[in-house]
Amino acid sequence: MKERIAIVGAGRMGANMARRLHETGHPIAGIYDVRAAEELAQEIGAPVIHSLSEVTAAAEIILTVVTDDAAMSEIFAEGGESLLAGAEGRLFINCATVSPAVHLEVEKRARAAGAMALEACMASSITQAREGSLYLMCGGTREAFERAEPVLRDLSATLRYVGGAGEAAKVKALVNMVMNINTAGLAEGLGLGEALGLDVGMLREIFAQTGAASRVLETDGEDMQNREHSCFFSAAHAAKDSGIALELAREAGLELPLAGAAKGQFDRMTESGRGDLDKSGVAELTFRGRG
Amino acid sequence: MKERIAIVGAGRMGANMARRLHETGHPIAGIYDVRAAEELAQEIGAPVIHSLSEVTAAAEIILTVVTDDAAMSEIFAEGGESLLAGAEGRLFINCATVSPAVHLEVEKRARAAGAMALEACMASSITQAREGSLYLMCGGTREAFERAEPVLRDLSATLRYVGGAGEAAKVKALVNMVMNINTAGLAEGLGLGEALGLDVGMLREIFAQTGAASRVLETDGEDMQNREHSCFFSAAHAAKDSGIALELAREAGLELPLAGAAKGQFDRMTESGRGDLDKSGVAELTFRGRG
Repeated sequence: MKERIAIVGAGRMGANMARRLHETGHPIAGIYDVRAAEELAQEIGAPVIHSLSEVTAAAEIILTVVTDDAAMSEIFAEGGESLLAGAEGRLFINCATVSPAVHLEVEKRARAAGAMALEACMASSITQAREGSLYLMCGGTREAFERAEPVLRDLSATLRYVGGAGEAAKVKALVNMVMNINTAGLAEGLGLGEALGLDVGMLREIFAQTGAASRVLETDGEDMQNREHSCFFSAAHAAKDSGIALELAREAGLELPLAGAAKGQFDRMTESGRGDLDKSGVAELTFRGRG
Repeated sequence: MKERIAIVGAGRMGANMARRLHETGHPIAGIYDVRAAEELAQEIGAPVIHSLSEVTAAAEIILTVVTDDAAMSEIFAEGGESLLAGAEGRLFINCATVSPAVHLEVEKRARAAGAMALEACMASSITQAREGSLYLMCGGTREAFERAEPVLRDLSATLRYVGGAGEAAKVKALVNMVMNINTAGLAEGLGLGEALGLDVGMLREIFAQTGAASRVLETDGEDMQNREHSCFFSAAHAAKDSGIALELAREAGLELPLAGAAKGQFDRMTESGRGDLDKSGVAELTFRGRG
């Protein structure tokens, strides 16, 4: 029998994961969000749950998709209103991109509460969540991974067990760090090309055939040219994820000037009120006359 | 009847282009280089030519593959020992990665001497030169391009006419600028991954499947991990090419922090005596304990 699942965090990712799990026959015990979640709850025929301890009471598996380190620490608070209240036997699957250290701490607290925690880091976006074709990297115990598998299989096209708690979060931070560098660098190449009077479409085509080729060229190049920046992965998230990687680098004693420059660009977007644009919006900083 | 070709600059690129042209039946009128070129000349049964004016006298088409702006300005000097002496009717095909402005100036001087100049910028490396599978982007008049075509077809897998003089050089500078950013960024991601105790092979595999994927991950990722930096495209060249792009950006009034950071890394390699390593050697700066 399938375990009951509650969803904590009904943003676009969490909502699409809930839809997909509902559609694939998983019993959804309820939805919790700090914002209104009635519409989604109605759509999938599940109740809105209004407190964290009720979430834990209502389901065996709690899938969390929150925004950042602070939100994670809050929902897994030690004492008070917390997912950890009455959590014995529960499995927490945590999908937010947060610091590896936070995943380690959450896993420790979950274990102390007689529960299990697994980080399931997503290297893909909203569309893939809806279609159940996410790229998922998991960190935690093998036992937690195996228990989560029936749920995660229905959400993912690729499911990888990376290692213990915190390990998948490290990989995720690195993926996004490199992706953000490539994105900000691509925006510079296309922006300079336009300033030099080159045909940007031709330039993208040549980039695709040469050493300048990259996944972000495929996903973001045309959007940069056309100023199509509706959000799949926001500039603010990009800045946050590069920040996580840079903090890991600082702790490791490494200087990473490219990662620093990329974070600088995404920070500039946030500071100039464009943090909610898609990461491709970084081209607004490098095309002449857009700034 | 095929036009006679002389080669100016018998470094590894020039030498391989000479071999390939010889092999495909083009008459090689001679080889010119500031260093000894006897071995290559003997191999392909062509004479070594010892002065620039004799090069021009010996062939209808002169293919130049020199190191930088200064070398280009020198071989195309106005007056004195120069390829332009007695150049009427000649076609110069210039393959070095130099500033667009230099190509424009060389074309102007060639026209004044009754000759034609075409830039043929290569977005590939030594192996492709030998196999005749280069990616070639050409800038100049259509007439020069059409005359060069029978030669360039035998050197390339892809041959593109980009536009007037200087235009292909702009595209080339942008390709290499973006490639250098992606390379330096990849080195940061893999270096930090190793410092965090992750399996770098696994990390490369995950990068390849996610938003961190890039052409340089395919060509340089494993070499970065294994410290295999025998040179295909040197760090010094990378620094030079990023410098060309940054100068174009400065003239256009654009600030490109990623390109600047990448140039900084390749400059550091040159300054620390590692400029002749392959560009993948930039990982020596970002893996702990290699510096």
